[in-house]
Amino acid sequence: MSYRIEKDTMGEVKVPADKLWGAQTERSRNNFKIGPAASMPIEIIYGFAYLKKAAAYTNCELGVLSEAKRDLIATVCDEILSGKHDDQFPLVIWQTGSGTQSNMNVNEVIANRAHQLAGKTIGEDEKTISPNDDVNKSQSSNDTFPTGMHIAAYKKIIDVTIPGVEQLRDTLQQKSEAFKEVVKIGRTHLMDATPLTLGQEFSGYVSQLNHGLKALKNTLPHLSELALGGTAVGTGLNTPLGYDVLVAKYIAQFTGLPFITAENKFEALAAHDALVETHGALKQLAVSLNKIANDIRMLASGPRSGIGEIIIPANEPGSSIMPGKVNPTQCEALTMVCAQVMGNDVAVTVGGTQGHYELNVFKPVMASNVLQSAELIGHACVSFDENCAIGIEPNHSVIKQLLNNSLMLVTALNTKIGYYKAAEIANTAHKNGTTLKEEAINLGYVNAEEYDEWVKPEDMVGSMK
Amino acid sequence: MSYRIEKDTMGEVKVPADKLWGAQTERSRNNFKIGPAASMPIEIIYGFAYLKKAAAYTNCELGVLSEAKRDLIATVCDEILSGKHDDQFPLVIWQTGSGTQSNMNVNEVIANRAHQLAGKTIGEDEKTISPNDDVNKSQSSNDTFPTGMHIAAYKKIIDVTIPGVEQLRDTLQQKSEAFKEVVKIGRTHLMDATPLTLGQEFSGYVSQLNHGLKALKNTLPHLSELALGGTAVGTGLNTPLGYDVLVAKYIAQFTGLPFITAENKFEALAAHDALVETHGALKQLAVSLNKIANDIRMLASGPRSGIGEIIIPANEPGSSIMPGKVNPTQCEALTMVCAQVMGNDVAVTVGGTQGHYELNVFKPVMASNVLQSAELIGHACVSFDENCAIGIEPNHSVIKQLLNNSLMLVTALNTKIGYYKAAEIANTAHKNGTTLKEEAINLGYVNAEEYDEWVKPEDMVGSMK
Amino acid sequence: MSYRIEKDTMGEVKVPADKLWGAQTERSRNNFKIGPAASMPIEIIYGFAYLKKAAAYTNCELGVLSEAKRDLIATVCDEILSGKHDDQFPLVIWQTGSGTQSNMNVNEVIANRAHQLAGKTIGEDEKTISPNDDVNKSQSSNDTFPTGMHIAAYKKIIDVTIPGVEQLRDTLQQKSEAFKEVVKIGRTHLMDATPLTLGQEFSGYVSQLNHGLKALKNTLPHLSELALGGTAVGTGLNTPLGYDVLVAKYIAQFTGLPFITAENKFEALAAHDALVETHGALKQLAVSLNKIANDIRMLASGPRSGIGEIIIPANEPGSSIMPGKVNPTQCEALTMVCAQVMGNDVAVTVGGTQGHYELNVFKPVMASNVLQSAELIGHACVSFDENCAIGIEPNHSVIKQLLNNSLMLVTALNTKIGYYKAAEIANTAHKNGTTLKEEAINLGYVNAEEYDEWVKPEDMVGSMK
Amino acid sequence: MSYRIEKDTMGEVKVPADKLWGAQTERSRNNFKIGPAASMPIEIIYGFAYLKKAAAYTNCELGVLSEAKRDLIATVCDEILSGKHDDQFPLVIWQTGSGTQSNMNVNEVIANRAHQLAGKTIGEDEKTISPNDDVNKSQSSNDTFPTGMHIAAYKKIIDVTIPGVEQLRDTLQQKSEAFKEVVKIGRTHLMDATPLTLGQEFSGYVSQLNHGLKALKNTLPHLSELALGGTAVGTGLNTPLGYDVLVAKYIAQFTGLPFITAENKFEALAAHDALVETHGALKQLAVSLNKIANDIRMLASGPRSGIGEIIIPANEPGSSIMPGKVNPTQCEALTMVCAQVMGNDVAVTVGGTQGHYELNVFKPVMASNVLQSAELIGHACVSFDENCAIGIEPNHSVIKQLLNNSLMLVTALNTKIGYYKAAEIANTAHKNGTTLKEEAINLGYVNAEEYDEWVKPEDMVGSMK
Repeated sequence: MSYRIEKDTMGEVKVPADKLWGAQTERSRNNFKIGPAASMPIEIIYGFAYLKKAAAYTNCELGVLSEAKRDLIATVCDEILSGKHDDQFPLVIWQTGSGTQSNMNVNEVIANRAHQLAGKTIGEDEKTISPNDDVNKSQSSNDTFPTGMHIAAYKKIIDVTIPGVEQLRDTLQQKSEAFKEVVKIGRTHLMDATPLTLGQEFSGYVSQLNHGLKALKNTLPHLSELALGGTAVGTGLNTPLGYDVLVAKYIAQFTGLPFITAENKFEALAAHDALVETHGALKQLAVSLNKIANDIRMLASGPRSGIGEIIIPANEPGSSIMPGKVNPTQCEALTMVCAQVMGNDVAVTVGGTQGHYELNVFKPVMASNVLQSAELIGHACVSFDENCAIGIEPNHSVIKQLLNNSLMLVTALNTKIGYYKAAEIANTAHKNGTTLKEEAINLGYVNAEEYDEWVKPEDMVGSMK
Repeated sequence: MSYRIEKDTMGEVKVPADKLWGAQTERSRNNFKIGPAASMPIEIIYGFAYLKKAAAYTNCELGVLSEAKRDLIATVCDEILSGKHDDQFPLVIWQTGSGTQSNMNVNEVIANRAHQLAGKTIGEDEKTISPNDDVNKSQSSNDTFPTGMHIAAYKKIIDVTIPGVEQLRDTLQQKSEAFKEVVKIGRTHLMDATPLTLGQEFSGYVSQLNHGLKALKNTLPHLSELALGGTAVGTGLNTPLGYDVLVAKYIAQFTGLPFITAENKFEALAAHDALVETHGALKQLAVSLNKIANDIRMLASGPRSGIGEIIIPANEPGSSIMPGKVNPTQCEALTMVCAQVMGNDVAVTVGGTQGHYELNVFKPVMASNVLQSAELIGHACVSFDENCAIGIEPNHSVIKQLLNNSLMLVTALNTKIGYYKAAEIANTAHKNGTTLKEEAINLGYVNAEEYDEWVKPEDMVGSMK
Repeated sequence: MSYRIEKDTMGEVKVPADKLWGAQTERSRNNFKIGPAASMPIEIIYGFAYLKKAAAYTNCELGVLSEAKRDLIATVCDEILSGKHDDQFPLVIWQTGSGTQSNMNVNEVIANRAHQLAGKTIGEDEKTISPNDDVNKSQSSNDTFPTGMHIAAYKKIIDVTIPGVEQLRDTLQQKSEAFKEVVKIGRTHLMDATPLTLGQEFSGYVSQLNHGLKALKNTLPHLSELALGGTAVGTGLNTPLGYDVLVAKYIAQFTGLPFITAENKFEALAAHDALVETHGALKQLAVSLNKIANDIRMLASGPRSGIGEIIIPANEPGSSIMPGKVNPTQCEALTMVCAQVMGNDVAVTVGGTQGHYELNVFKPVMASNVLQSAELIGHACVSFDENCAIGIEPNHSVIKQLLNNSLMLVTALNTKIGYYKAAEIANTAHKNGTTLKEEAINLGYVNAEEYDEWVKPEDMVGSMK
Repeated sequence: MSYRIEKDTMGEVKVPADKLWGAQTERSRNNFKIGPAASMPIEIIYGFAYLKKAAAYTNCELGVLSEAKRDLIATVCDEILSGKHDDQFPLVIWQTGSGTQSNMNVNEVIANRAHQLAGKTIGEDEKTISPNDDVNKSQSSNDTFPTGMHIAAYKKIIDVTIPGVEQLRDTLQQKSEAFKEVVKIGRTHLMDATPLTLGQEFSGYVSQLNHGLKALKNTLPHLSELALGGTAVGTGLNTPLGYDVLVAKYIAQFTGLPFITAENKFEALAAHDALVETHGALKQLAVSLNKIANDIRMLASGPRSGIGEIIIPANEPGSSIMPGKVNPTQCEALTMVCAQVMGNDVAVTVGGTQGHYELNVFKPVMASNVLQSAELIGHACVSFDENCAIGIEPNHSVIKQLLNNSLMLVTALNTKIGYYKAAEIANTAHKNGTTLKEEAINLGYVNAEEYDEWVKPEDMVGSMK
């Protein structure tokens, strides 16, 4: 491989000749060979591209950067956002906890690419723009990295998580309506209970997801606060007056998202409770989705020796040894995602506790876990929706049979003959393997007409709303 | 010990003669000897007392319970809330996951105590009011227990958590203002960085707690939704028309808290995402508090071989072997609380995922963890405030000395001579053990006048807001 | 209330006159009002009693404590271990993270009680023995507290956890043997699969618990290492030669457990990985128990609309509204315990990460979580065993019916006609709601005799070992 | 793109013409678009390659597979293990929880590649060997996937984790010896305490890692148990006699690792406590490493306003804004890894609890987390060792200065004048800002000669072992 020489304040470094990055990126690449290469999420790089462009515009508007430099920087940022330079960001999550070298990676790529755009070969002449003094002007890793991760997380939630959850929620809502008159047995403690409709059962899932979406949206204002303008320790050293508000405005404009400058920059560098808060809501969604997916696979279990009240789409042969087997594979993928999100929540939480003085240095691990959870939930909801939920149908004959067998219909008699006599009827029928009606009459508590009038499953399910 | 005989639908049970509880409580007491006795939080019992009274009022108003019975029930509920019967609730958290026997414990105590209030001896004659048909009228364990736990958790947060956090927040706010002109060295990566004021440092803590309080308050609407009226599976079977809305109104009236009936009762029984959501916010507060307490003990470390920039109150002899030692004990208690809350969060999360069909049967473990975290955070904040935060004072001489030694003041020169030359100055001073000023002049990048004019710590801290 | 004056190095403190504790205990009691009083586990106090007695014997044997003082100290320690002074230890978990004041609580109680035993009234004359110079001789909180927690945890595991798990394991082993010829349908992905015996199913549970017990026992050597002798920072300052080995020998003798002195005292004070390790094994047991309890409640679900392959004991009326309902309450208690243990594991882990320099100051929270988990698992296993597992019986008629309906018996034909033709048979029978045999013959792949010979569930379950 | 048609029991599927996989892989690829493509760890694919080859040898030896087919299968497995077909495994972690389609992916690739090796074009003629009836002979996904994940995890731990931790442990051991006479101040509660040597401090780290390695190795026997031979539900249906023991022997031979057949196959399919156990030990290592890395960055903090007792290598410019700044970046990467491992532990634990009946369907998420943690710990230890630990040096002047300032040297006087007088000396010196010696003499408790004789830091550190 051929190399060129790049320099930073520590001296010279050999960098692969065909790469746009510079000395600091190369140092970090060599010093942190931990896990797969280039694990730093590309979404964070894109977050940087937005903010570097916004900083250039702001610096220019506030008189500390030329229009020429601004335009060069902005052009490269747009190239980065187009995906053109994805292979120029080789660093890993497991680097310095401030993400300094990822910030420098972006600075260096922008500076070298700008040099090319200015008609020069990298290494030829002095750099057209300086990675530190121009691209990073009015910035520090300490405020850019958190800004980049807020942009990345916010975008992911808006672009992937919320639409995914909403898509599934909408399908479940339609199912709830479609099934609103399908009376079936309820189950509590996994045991037979009083009836409800299948539509009511699904309405609970819809309500869970609606609450989860609301909880997630509640976290967005904190996430919309950007650290940029705090620079090294939160004081805004080396930034021009008005920089923080203006740069947030540009970021909001470029991303189309309601970002604002953080009211308190000291928190914004030293603590990442906003990520903790957002991931808490992602975890709540995982809790809800786990319940839903679990229910659906249990309701669909069988086909002959399970519950079998609903039928879900058969998507793949279910077994390499058992012919004809079909499994609730989407439920499994979704619940595995939920387990991962629950784990990620602890990683984010632990990282969140460990800010020291003016800086939290668990930024990359916190951000990457938030991004992974946000993406997995969004994708898994879409996958679950399109390959499972959309095709759920009631198995009417099973539903009817299980409903009519149930001993818990006796509950309807509580208000007529009292809990204790009702219990005697149910216990006797259970012991004798008989029907409630038989024993209710045998025990002399009701007659046949009363029984038929009082024990109607369809009257036990409330408003079927 | 002397016993009396109590009965339920399974038959007779011997109960200690001096206790108000009945057969089902005794069964559970004998069947679940797990951990310390009576571990079911008393706050949940009180939550039941509120709801049993509200149910009696509602049932009476809707014409299904006599005024006489209503008043008997209400009187016992008031007695329970006064703490008079605290020793009548012997059950543990680790019972049935629906809390059925804790519901029955309350029903039985109310029924037996009402019998006494009606002038009878327990066991004498038929019960004046029935535990199931009167006290539990229009109710199920499945909707009462979640209602009781929402009441308990909401009250704890309002009465203990929020006031505790706000008390600490207010003190930190006062300190932030008091210290607003104390310029000191900043630290990032635990390493010397550019200066800020001690007040700015503390303002970050205030901002964290404000965000945390907001996040906690965001969860209260979900927690204000009550399951009551859903009865067995969410359909409201055996409840009179309008019951759910009215009973929530009475609970709101009796507690003074804005409870409403849950829009979707199926969710309210089968999932406890509201507890997951609330505990998520408690965990976020733990994350913030951990950062704050950690910073304070590090800033106070020493007295001679640590950082020593602040002085905290000396409350106890710090060592049984090292004479004269004083330790940051309040920080330690608080961070231990944070560790517990982080653990509790996982317990609540795991419980939350495991609802099956129409019921989640992890109610007691979820509720007890939420209550513990809410109480510990509230108490620990008050303890930390009164025994530590309130007494924090800057150690001006140390602060000044460390500030003036710092090599990172060189950052002020970036905008004058560029990042690379500034780095050279700092690196040289570090290598030679000299001052920045000496090396800045030696290297010929600035003269003495320029240095003194450009490198002023007090000008590097921004607006000191 | 009446008070007396006690003193420590910080000055005078008023202590309730009827209490044995002294100044430092009272300071901590007043400074840490966090959660319920006296939450420091009594097992840790007992651990201290063992070690204080052992230290007295060792100090005496090594010539630095008189026999008279040794005997006074030992007598009080024996009184403490008899439970006589349980109300003399009012401190909470949430105190200094070194447990210094709990160490002093024990020192003070021993000193004051010894004064009484010496025929004096507390406060009268100089103390017969000094809390610091005699009771705490050759000790520091930093080595006594970890020693106390190791003793407490080890004893709990030996006395409660292992016997509880073994008791349940033995019952499951007996059930496995009793059920070894009960052929039933298997289920994978919750879906019908090839058959196995109920005994085989239970043998998996036994194997899980055996592996879990082995894992737990693997952690005991680390837990058997005692910090005592390290004193303040691990160097053993102020201890006589040979003290650490001898004091561990006495502790081993007094407890009957194989304690040894830690080879490295610096680790033993600064890190509590032994607790992390032990709790990891407790968590593994929780994982296993959760699987077992979950399976049993699903297998017992019904009675008419669930799986219903096994019958478990009916212990309590299952519902306050649904008459005659019986629930798998022991499964619920056990899985709630598992959720708690999973949460506790995070608390212990987080505490474990946060040792700083020569001391980890998360001792009380780590120890109390280990003790709670160890006790809950032990108790819950016994409760589950005696109230559920012991009474599990197969529901033969259900098992037979579900087995014979199964489409997955077709797997037996794989080796005769190949996977693809077998799948065709199963799919066709599923579509038509017919039997495998009918379709196998219809499709012309086998004749009736072949089918009956090849498809025998009892031949599909292997050795029934 | 051009396609060919592949078939499975559900019908025809279009597959990219240039790929070796078949119908089931393609179905899964289309049905599970969750997260990045091909996220199923390649190590698991390699685990499959080992076991498919072993199964072919075993089947052949037991007379159910021809030598020709055996050799074809083995040849492709060797090709896979050489890395030649890495791009033929496009599936994600978030698929069916049994990993069925990843098993089929391997079966299909082997079958199609074998067809090529047999001189045919894929799709031409009938397949030379059948994915289900030949490659998967005597196997099920349910026993192959857990076998593959045990092979992958065991290999990773042997190849990466243990060597990485040992490398770091060895360096710390060397440092401990090199620093064994560097007497320095100890710190407990972050506060000045009695002295120890820097070597002693490091010896605690070594001891932690030794305990962690032992704990990890303790888990390997459970991990060495292979499910293979259990087939669909653990009974070994459709396997020839002796298959399970022999196939494990071949796997042991091919991998060079001590694999054995699991004594209980029902556990081996339905529960993955072995992964829970192994990850528990990885988490313990993370706890230890976190403590070590934290200590090192605190000890190295400064350079002028921190602790500064050790010097660590300067590897990258530490700040994009603060010139000359150097940070403990390896400590940060390592502690971020620890946070991730702590989170992964919860994901593994949650997955472990959720086996149902005869199968746990959280296999891919559990396995991928174990593999990630095992790799990250191994890599991070090497990175930390080579870029940080190896270069750690004491800063003697700082160490000496801080030691001599310490007030806790007074502890040496305890045994001479008692704890209370010693405390008075320390408190007075602290209040007056004077030295211990001055106040000791002023207070009249010792004279100068006594002080100098009794208070020698080098005598307070024990055996310096």
